[in-house]
Amino acid sequence: MAGGRGERFWPQSREATPKHLLPIVGDKPMLAQTVDRVAGVVPRENVFIITTQAQLEGCRGACPDLPAANIVAEPMGRDTAAATGLAMLLVKQRNPTAAFAMLPADHVIKDTAEYAKLLAIAFEAAESADVLVTLGIKPAAPETGFGYIQQAGVWRQVGGRDVMAVKRFVEKPDLATAQGYLAAGEYFWNAGMFVWRVPVVEAAFKAHAAELYAGLAKLEAAAQSAGGWAVALAEVYPTLKKVSVDYALMEKSTNVVVVPATFDWDDVGAWPALAKHFTPDKDGNVLRGHALVEGGTHNIVVSTDGHLIGVVGCSDLVVVHTPEATLVCPKDRAQDIKALLERLKQDPAKRQFL
Amino acid sequence: MAGGRGERFWPQSREATPKHLLPIVGDKPMLAQTVDRVAGVVPRENVFIITTQAQLEGCRGACPDLPAANIVAEPMGRDTAAATGLAMLLVKQRNPTAAFAMLPADHVIKDTAEYAKLLAIAFEAAESADVLVTLGIKPAAPETGFGYIQQAGVWRQVGGRDVMAVKRFVEKPDLATAQGYLAAGEYFWNAGMFVWRVPVVEAAFKAHAAELYAGLAKLEAAAQSAGGWAVALAEVYPTLKKVSVDYALMEKSTNVVVVPATFDWDDVGAWPALAKHFTPDKDGNVLRGHALVEGGTHNIVVSTDGHLIGVVGCSDLVVVHTPEATLVCPKDRAQDIKALLERLKQDPAKRQFL
Repeated sequence: MAGGRGERFWPQSREATPKHLLPIVGDKPMLAQTVDRVAGVVPRENVFIITTQAQLEGCRGACPDLPAANIVAEPMGRDTAAATGLAMLLVKQRNPTAAFAMLPADHVIKDTAEYAKLLAIAFEAAESADVLVTLGIKPAAPETGFGYIQQAGVWRQVGGRDVMAVKRFVEKPDLATAQGYLAAGEYFWNAGMFVWRVPVVEAAFKAHAAELYAGLAKLEAAAQSAGGWAVALAEVYPTLKKVSVDYALMEKSTNVVVVPATFDWDDVGAWPALAKHFTPDKDGNVLRGHALVEGGTHNIVVSTDGHLIGVVGCSDLVVVHTPEATLVCPKDRAQDIKALLERLKQDPAKRQFL
Repeated sequence: MAGGRGERFWPQSREATPKHLLPIVGDKPMLAQTVDRVAGVVPRENVFIITTQAQLEGCRGACPDLPAANIVAEPMGRDTAAATGLAMLLVKQRNPTAAFAMLPADHVIKDTAEYAKLLAIAFEAAESADVLVTLGIKPAAPETGFGYIQQAGVWRQVGGRDVMAVKRFVEKPDLATAQGYLAAGEYFWNAGMFVWRVPVVEAAFKAHAAELYAGLAKLEAAAQSAGGWAVALAEVYPTLKKVSVDYALMEKSTNVVVVPATFDWDDVGAWPALAKHFTPDKDGNVLRGHALVEGGTHNIVVSTDGHLIGVVGCSDLVVVHTPEATLVCPKDRAQDIKALLERLKQDPAKRQFL
């Protein structure tokens, strides 16, 4: 899934170059790192990218080794349930009973070997029973920005690891609730990583998302007609119900299991999260590119290139420079970047900076 | 006097483009505005600019109507007393008894008519007696960044205005002392604007700055020899004692008078001072160029061009963007920019940004 806007990484992420097309952490676009990461588990010819028209060229550039036909553009974003349905149809066309993984394209996972092992276990679990398999992240803090997965004891052992039954998926909690989840010890972060067989996820659409299921049936029929995928996507996709896969399927299904992730994981949701992935100087500053700080500056994040950013006497600040635009934002206000982008959208003279 | 570095306006002011060569306030370089401002009092052919080699071309570009020979470059900065001595010799060569004004090139004065009137009165005073005339600014606040001039009652009326006798020149005070000066009501800010006749200032050099006086005599003799000014400046100027005109002459002379300035005046000493000269938005933000603020941002100063500066949730901050470098600095830390520039000087990879 490589269709997100990644607004919180503005100005480095722009409409045509969202977070997953940038090397936010690492030396390749996050999407290319994601494709590399599954290479040991999924043959390259079976890797699909679901993206948007605006990002199609960028995705091809980031993953030049992938067959061009495997990079599929939504004519417009219809949220993750529709993207899942599209992926299901693309896989079904090749193999109606195949298992496939739905994976976000912009996460940081450094322990590639452990990740490949767990992904293989998730595939094994999905192939062994009629279950929706998810990978759950052990919470490191009471984050309010993630959904949570409550487990209900061991479902079965797969590949030498405990796979847990799932009691429920819950939406992003408030802080007190998140603290409760953390204390309870039986919750995982929902990182949006799923593995399932086509018939199992199709049954879930049919049971829990009837309207979307009907739309997907129309999409499938249109794709098999003379116009093929191009016409099917253009005509049917925009009519699909816009809903998240968590809400449409996961919160309502009772056949969900979770593989506890034993690899490192970070979604690097916004600029302040970058600090975790780079070695700070003695004052806690993470400085990328030509940056110079003075006067007690500490705990700041600077991202620039050959352009010099000079910071004097600041703390807990994010400064990001690109050739077109520069952001200055306290670390604890990073969520307000979206408000800035709303303003840009409304100003014809500044819309170019989106 | 147009030789200062204007370091506090980095990164807009650079080694070859200091503050007086930039339109910090107004639509012309501050130097050109200064030259325009004296046009009603001093014929253009009698206006000299004392600058440095690095800024010579910039000064010529800023003042294309001035005779090229009137723009004189010091081979190296030797502070304001030596610059005054050089100016004295340049004027003396044309007219040994002429009165001349020494004026900084980077101040903001909007009431040009009142300024011209007061400058003419200062000339009249200097021509009427053997006095060193200065223009004093009525203090608006207990500034610790200026020297002060204590007056001692009316010296005489000139051109319908009271010109005051001067009791003493005092160096930059601490805050408590400055508050005392403000309360006393008999102090002016020393803005470094002086008017005097050649013989009177020459006598002051002789009486109070013997070493520099001897150096200036050597400079004068060298200028009259075959090599002319070029050789004289290159060989003698670097040997002149480096001292301020305030310390060398003004603090020691007893024949000083002050014309109370009745025009607006600001030295715009650093970025935060810019806020006084532009109309802020409803949140007190002064935004020049493509700037957009969000999330309660208030009382900030942004200077940019077509490059977008987006600021979220910040207050009392200065953000200055140029194509090569960007500064981020709280308003109350502007004096620490000099420390940043010291670091730049020491870093070969970053020296280019000075």
